[in-house]
Amino acid sequence: MKGFKFAGIRAGIKKKDQKDLGMIYSDTPAVAAALFTRNKVVAAPVLLGKEKIKNGLCQAVLVNSGNANCFTGQKGIEDAIACTKIVAKSLDISEDFVLVSSTGVIGAILPMDKFETGVPALVGQLSENHVDDFADAILTTDTCRKIVTQTGTIGDKKFSIIGIAKGSGMIRPDMATMLAFICTDINILAEDLDACLRKANETSFNRITVDGDTSTNDTLLALANGAAQARVTDANSKKVFQEALTKVCFELAKMIVKDGEGATKLVQIIVKGAQTKQDAFKASEAIAHSNLVKTAIYGEDPNWGRITAAAGRSGAHVVPENMDLFFDDQPLVLKGNWQGAEAEKKTALIMKNNEITITLDLNLGQETDSFLFCDFSVDYVKINAEYRS
Amino acid sequence: MKGFKFAGIRAGIKKKDQKDLGMIYSDTPAVAAALFTRNKVVAAPVLLGKEKIKNGLCQAVLVNSGNANCFTGQKGIEDAIACTKIVAKSLDISEDFVLVSSTGVIGAILPMDKFETGVPALVGQLSENHVDDFADAILTTDTCRKIVTQTGTIGDKKFSIIGIAKGSGMIRPDMATMLAFICTDINILAEDLDACLRKANETSFNRITVDGDTSTNDTLLALANGAAQARVTDANSKKVFQEALTKVCFELAKMIVKDGEGATKLVQIIVKGAQTKQDAFKASEAIAHSNLVKTAIYGEDPNWGRITAAAGRSGAHVVPENMDLFFDDQPLVLKGNWQGAEAEKKTALIMKNNEITITLDLNLGQETDSFLFCDFSVDYVKINAEYRS
Repeated sequence: MKGFKFAGIRAGIKKKDQKDLGMIYSDTPAVAAALFTRNKVVAAPVLLGKEKIKNGLCQAVLVNSGNANCFTGQKGIEDAIACTKIVAKSLDISEDFVLVSSTGVIGAILPMDKFETGVPALVGQLSENHVDDFADAILTTDTCRKIVTQTGTIGDKKFSIIGIAKGSGMIRPDMATMLAFICTDINILAEDLDACLRKANETSFNRITVDGDTSTNDTLLALANGAAQARVTDANSKKVFQEALTKVCFELAKMIVKDGEGATKLVQIIVKGAQTKQDAFKASEAIAHSNLVKTAIYGEDPNWGRITAAAGRSGAHVVPENMDLFFDDQPLVLKGNWQGAEAEKKTALIMKNNEITITLDLNLGQETDSFLFCDFSVDYVKINAEYRS
Repeated sequence: MKGFKFAGIRAGIKKKDQKDLGMIYSDTPAVAAALFTRNKVVAAPVLLGKEKIKNGLCQAVLVNSGNANCFTGQKGIEDAIACTKIVAKSLDISEDFVLVSSTGVIGAILPMDKFETGVPALVGQLSENHVDDFADAILTTDTCRKIVTQTGTIGDKKFSIIGIAKGSGMIRPDMATMLAFICTDINILAEDLDACLRKANETSFNRITVDGDTSTNDTLLALANGAAQARVTDANSKKVFQEALTKVCFELAKMIVKDGEGATKLVQIIVKGAQTKQDAFKASEAIAHSNLVKTAIYGEDPNWGRITAAAGRSGAHVVPENMDLFFDDQPLVLKGNWQGAEAEKKTALIMKNNEITITLDLNLGQETDSFLFCDFSVDYVKINAEYRS
């Protein structure tokens, strides 16, 4: 990726022997746009970031894992600002162009000494080839790094996008314990980048759920440094970039759900035939969040009763006698009637797959919405019961 | 209990060798009131019950476990009506005075032959002393029967209330996979019984959660046969009855949560100091439903970050810097500040108890609400992954 450098090291913030400090650096100040958590209990770096993003430029992003710097009061804000200063000094750039981001345990004070020593070491590691190190450094309970790359062409000019994310618990719409960083070399105005990012977020990160909790630290940040010759100048070029960006966000979102804490299956629920978009959203969201549905999927049980019952309590307008329900292409319920033991047998086989699409057709209208979610396993409980110990 | 008889037998509806058919019978037609699930996917007996309760009288209730008679279409309705007829014939009473109720697996057709043979056998077992049999017959994944008795006095006249409930999964506000039957010998008008029942429900069954799913079959039914001399005639006598009824409902609700699928701990979350009643409700509901909070409690971890984060995403007006958080009487956060390792140590000891009260004071106003909930264990997942297999 032209003009971007990455680094990731172990600074000693995490107890475990894992990388915990990462940096993205752009050779020149990049156009920047960001979306943050809507939780009212919000981490210090998010409070700071919301202010700093207003200038629309960013040259360096520092990310630590192992400590969320959340619920840390005035001290947390001061620490986040101190981190910014350390970065600005180490890179010899303006602190106006530095953003910081944190993820990990809530309520613990940042170990500032680790940043004092870690940041200069991190700067020494900056390289175009160290994307993997950065991707590793931002992980918490994730079991694998999450990187998506995409290229596109505007006229005969190429552009690239790279997206790096973390997140596997506390995932639900309106952002999650999710950090996602998008770097692109396209030439784009800050307001266009912002609009594209919001649109991409709506159908990707805002349509996934692991456990229904929203984090205090969620951040989706996009940097565009204009190092490529491709340029967003009109509706057409914007559309090309939008498609590429949405694809990167959707793939990252999918990777997050797939790596959901304890997840064994990736499921897409599609609700179609709804009278209103809101109904489609409500029904698909209720199904994706239902613990009874999620545990049934873990048990490889095509428990259509729980799925339709979740739609029934969602607040969406539904009529049981109109419902069709499919697992992949296999119908199990048609017009409210269970299709019998043979159909259930075929469905049960489909449930053994790692990726399953469930389609609920309400047969009441034309609107559709969908969610990506994962099953709910014994390991999810174990991971979250033991997280702090 | 004067004038009420009970029975519970094994009719062969469940695969397991357990009681699965129960009956409550009143010597005379009793004044009746009922509340039903708000789920739009609703079981046949509920559809029928909603109509029949309108006449305000009931003499016999038939309850089966093992089959919910839900998502069974027109056939389900016909079967529920057929059950009513069998009961009316066996008891030689009007079918207008017969209610039926079902709980168990969704989507399976009722085995009518078991009812043909079971109901007459059940009638033969009716006795004032068979409450335990009835209470056993209505259980599904419950691990224990749930019976609460209460007496009261109006003037010098005594009255009694007995409540019998089932439910341990699919429990959330707006009713749950919960069946609760209240019998009382008080003399009361149908409209007063209905009003008292609604009020009692609001602070009991509508403030509990096990897993956040609402069932298709929830029913809360009260019968008052007037066999005692105590009579609700004015505001004062109504208040006495209301208090006793609310107590019965609250104790039953508590038993349901305590017996929550896989539950190891019973927790009451109290949110106080909210600006509005709605804020108090939203914050307490979000905490009680948070899987991250529930798994932390299972892990005996006083994870205040997750509790405050759940309040933060609830939509309630909260200010982190104002929050106080207590586990029983032990403060862990005061005015947004963590109270240190010593306080956390004390809190961790409290987390080892089977019953815990968590109080979140928002310090923004005067309103309060509370929820009863249970922790989320490895066994919950196991129970619900394997339910149909």
